[in-house]
Amino acid sequence: MKKIVVIGGGAAGTSAAMAARKQDRTAEITVVHKEKVPEYSRCGLPYVISGVIGGFENLVIHPVDFYEKMMRIKLLLGKEVTDVSGNEVILDDGTRLVWDSLIIATGGMPVTLPAPGFSKVFTLRTIEDGRSIAAEAKKGKKAAIVGAGLVGMELADAFVKLGVDTSVVELMPEILPLLDKDMAEQVRKKAESEGVKFFLGKKLEDTGLKGDFAVISVGVRADTALAKKMGLNVNRGIVVNDKMETSRPGVYAAGDCAEFSGGRPIQLGTIAVRSGRVAGANAAGGDAKAVRFHAAGMTTLFGIEASVVGLTETEAASKGIPIVVGKSSGGSKPEYYPGGHPIQVKLIASPEGKLLGAQVIGDAQRINSLSLAIEKGCSLQDLAGWETGYAPPLAPVIDPIAVAAEAALLRLSRRAN
Amino acid sequence: MKKIVVIGGGAAGTSAAMAARKQDRTAEITVVHKEKVPEYSRCGLPYVISGVIGGFENLVIHPVDFYEKMMRIKLLLGKEVTDVSGNEVILDDGTRLVWDSLIIATGGMPVTLPAPGFSKVFTLRTIEDGRSIAAEAKKGKKAAIVGAGLVGMELADAFVKLGVDTSVVELMPEILPLLDKDMAEQVRKKAESEGVKFFLGKKLEDTGLKGDFAVISVGVRADTALAKKMGLNVNRGIVVNDKMETSRPGVYAAGDCAEFSGGRPIQLGTIAVRSGRVAGANAAGGDAKAVRFHAAGMTTLFGIEASVVGLTETEAASKGIPIVVGKSSGGSKPEYYPGGHPIQVKLIASPEGKLLGAQVIGDAQRINSLSLAIEKGCSLQDLAGWETGYAPPLAPVIDPIAVAAEAALLRLSRRAN
Repeated sequence: MKKIVVIGGGAAGTSAAMAARKQDRTAEITVVHKEKVPEYSRCGLPYVISGVIGGFENLVIHPVDFYEKMMRIKLLLGKEVTDVSGNEVILDDGTRLVWDSLIIATGGMPVTLPAPGFSKVFTLRTIEDGRSIAAEAKKGKKAAIVGAGLVGMELADAFVKLGVDTSVVELMPEILPLLDKDMAEQVRKKAESEGVKFFLGKKLEDTGLKGDFAVISVGVRADTALAKKMGLNVNRGIVVNDKMETSRPGVYAAGDCAEFSGGRPIQLGTIAVRSGRVAGANAAGGDAKAVRFHAAGMTTLFGIEASVVGLTETEAASKGIPIVVGKSSGGSKPEYYPGGHPIQVKLIASPEGKLLGAQVIGDAQRINSLSLAIEKGCSLQDLAGWETGYAPPLAPVIDPIAVAAEAALLRLSRRAN
Repeated sequence: MKKIVVIGGGAAGTSAAMAARKQDRTAEITVVHKEKVPEYSRCGLPYVISGVIGGFENLVIHPVDFYEKMMRIKLLLGKEVTDVSGNEVILDDGTRLVWDSLIIATGGMPVTLPAPGFSKVFTLRTIEDGRSIAAEAKKGKKAAIVGAGLVGMELADAFVKLGVDTSVVELMPEILPLLDKDMAEQVRKKAESEGVKFFLGKKLEDTGLKGDFAVISVGVRADTALAKKMGLNVNRGIVVNDKMETSRPGVYAAGDCAEFSGGRPIQLGTIAVRSGRVAGANAAGGDAKAVRFHAAGMTTLFGIEASVVGLTETEAASKGIPIVVGKSSGGSKPEYYPGGHPIQVKLIASPEGKLLGAQVIGDAQRINSLSLAIEKGCSLQDLAGWETGYAPPLAPVIDPIAVAAEAALLRLSRRAN
């Protein structure tokens, strides 16, 4: 009977354990998790803070007894792995667990920074963090958020809903640096109109801001301490191939601690689950392979949906990748139908017209089509001719994506002439 | 200077004229339209009847002077073409128009049936039809709709909103026959809960229904009279290839009057526009080709979005096409986030796992991804591994489409064992 140990019971570790069970009905599967609660949605934390979700306990994906009773997975909560010695994992209470396959899903640690003008300083990673921030935010005081990425901006939205006097400080010249400036600025303007103050291109110490509490939301560093101790190949994350195999046979890594083909960690919940599933299936003797990850991200901020996948114009410029850009502004419904809202699409393609990246403001679902389009090597021609459905209450005859593709094709044809 | 004549100024004809202008800045383009108003959204008619859209005039796409002033297109309204003699089109007022390229976009004629138990009988094709039906429906009387396709059901939804006592009669055993029964019945149940009475598997005369007015909504017959007179190759529609060329050089057809490769007319507004664009570009000397049409259709009825693309299980059975089916029931949001609604997905694939068709109840946008997936030859594996975006207010971590693809793969693997 195969023994599989999973280090970390977050999204990647739990998905890995479930996938291992699906692959091998008899394997002995143990998940060691340093938190005291089983897997919960980290992405849901800002929405409990805002009050949209009723309580932090709602975020827990499966009750504790589900693991043992339904999945025959042994879940050890509140335990840390201190070392891996040969084929044994050693826990902080001295327990030793033998493994045939090992999955490292240690996640990441939020990067923190000093915030001298503020009485309290937090990061947001765990339910405990969430409870502390919620307690402060409910008092409706003065706060700063350092970092205007997805989580930082979702917190800003939550704070405004709670009546907190909110400032956002971002080192880059625009919010949501995973999008291009021309797209992200539309979200910023809406946030400003709802009362958020922005300090762009600045560090916290440049602003002179003071207040009751600050949340540092500048990203997550892959937790690679154990992997390094084991001598695995570690770069910014634990280096894995598309089967989630590390440099040591029988050892897999997935989620926020891993660095995927293409040389980057992609610290999104979707990727944690998908890479975890691949790691788990393979650890249990399967032969799973991840599709290439394109980092499809979406959120909704101050009533505006924003989404991105693949290459941005900014990233292309910084890497010297030649591209063509196509943009469009359209509506979610035909003009004559009431209740529509604007949708802006930006497509990034190679000079040969192959789709490399996309951003959509005003709708999130469309990014999924574009993720598929990148994965399948779609051309701008494919998107310009795309047969989309149409109904006045639901969609225009020609989708804004097709219009953006036509704009990009026009630019290419002008370059050729 | 090239002379292009377009017969018909609906969606296909207007799109053709615009595309011709885009292709050739100097051509002399004339559109002959038998209606007295320029192109309007036929799909919008039920929503004016229901009162959601303020007036029929709102449906007009471009004002009359737009054609001449902005596009340099001559638009002849209220004129019918009686014959085509050599390179001349002859109008009912005796006018002769010389053409180098001719585009036939004569549309379709609604099929009608007798309704003896009803004081008035209508079909819904034109604004005039819409006005007549709206006048009756506002009186809130007793009506029957014969035909439970998209238009018939959109009318039923409108009638219920207006307080009309509404019965729907459908010859097939379930409503929305372009979907499979297991998907369509969910919409029917919702409609029943809102007061619509259904008579399925029945003709109107089988029901003994009587009332104030009936609307016959059993489909549209391609208007091929002129094409036949010209000796063009006509089947159920005017036969065209993927360049929208008819059997006679220089003569194109598009929209509801055309029959596309694969041997069927697809009488949807989206296809009218797309085929019109191809016809117009080619008529003006371009070299455009349509993507294969997959008949992506969507609507929203009684608060439930419904959509379909490509092959259905029913169609596969009737044609003896071997398939595998995968279904899923999921949510539009993660379970812990309030305000989500159910989404049901049904995928139809070949025994080799290639996607051939799909239906989604509870969401319409997703059908567009699936239309692209069919066009690009996606496999169930592609869809199961699809990287979709995730955010608690917007989407679950694993999309219901991926779950349905996994279900289909499981069935295939069981068949293999």
